Amino acid sequence: MSYDTNNIFAKILRGEIPCHKVYEDEHTLAFMDVMPQADGHTLVIPKMPSRNLLDADPRALGALMAAVQKVANAAKQAFGAEGVLIQQFNESAAGQTVFHLHVHILPRHGGVALRPHTGKMADHAMLAEQAARIRAALGG
Amino acid sequence: MSYDTNNIFAKILRGEIPCHKVYEDEHTLAFMDVMPQADGHTLVIPKMPSRNLLDADPRALGALMAAVQKVANAAKQAFGAEGVLIQQFNESAAGQTVFHLHVHILPRHGGVALRPHTGKMADHAMLAEQAARIRAALGG
Repeated sequence: MSYDTNNIFAKILRGEIPCHKVYEDEHTLAFMDVMPQADGHTLVIPKMPSRNLLDADPRALGALMAAVQKVANAAKQAFGAEGVLIQQFNESAAGQTVFHLHVHILPRHGGVALRPHTGKMADHAMLAEQAARIRAALGG
Repeated sequence: MSYDTNNIFAKILRGEIPCHKVYEDEHTLAFMDVMPQADGHTLVIPKMPSRNLLDADPRALGALMAAVQKVANAAKQAFGAEGVLIQQFNESAAGQTVFHLHVHILPRHGGVALRPHTGKMADHAMLAEQAARIRAALGG
């Protein structure tokens, strides 16, 4: 299992394709999932390349999860959520579709089901507005 | 939202109730989920108390996720899995039922659905056997 430098998140990291950015630091980038399963559905990725968690440099994980924590708290606040679901998929059998390590942050409200994956991209104006709300909660 | 020192994982950490241990180091403990949704369903917890990810000391997250990575690779190997699902629930609205930070590790096989939560404990001999398989894969 190798790392493909042309995966879509590698292209986002290189600035070759755009994203709705929420947070960035030396080691991590966070942006809106373009097929959100909940309002505020955000992805956090390490800048260091790895296919997923299984082959990641363990030294990259502390900074990654500290960023996940920051964005999770901000997304919870921005969307008035009651909880936050964190998911991370390793290989196709576990639901992984982009092969650069990424962590899903899904704000949850009691009794509101996650939306199914339709394969359709969400409206970009809506994603931009949601990213702005999370950035505001981060104080950025 | 405060930390209840009598939650079940705090009791496991204090040795007041048993667990099917898979891995332990200075900062973390891993053991079988007693209501597994897949063969090899393991939990990893930090020894440092926190309710969940939202209030955890960020400095505890690197060691936690390094342990998650180790156990995930071992569980994948032990059960011949094709993938691994990582889940972490924050607050009831996101599915959290025990309020000490924990990370779920679920080995996945293509086309095999996760088992639903029945609320019934699994057979302890089976859990002990699965824990032994993961410990063997860890080289322990």
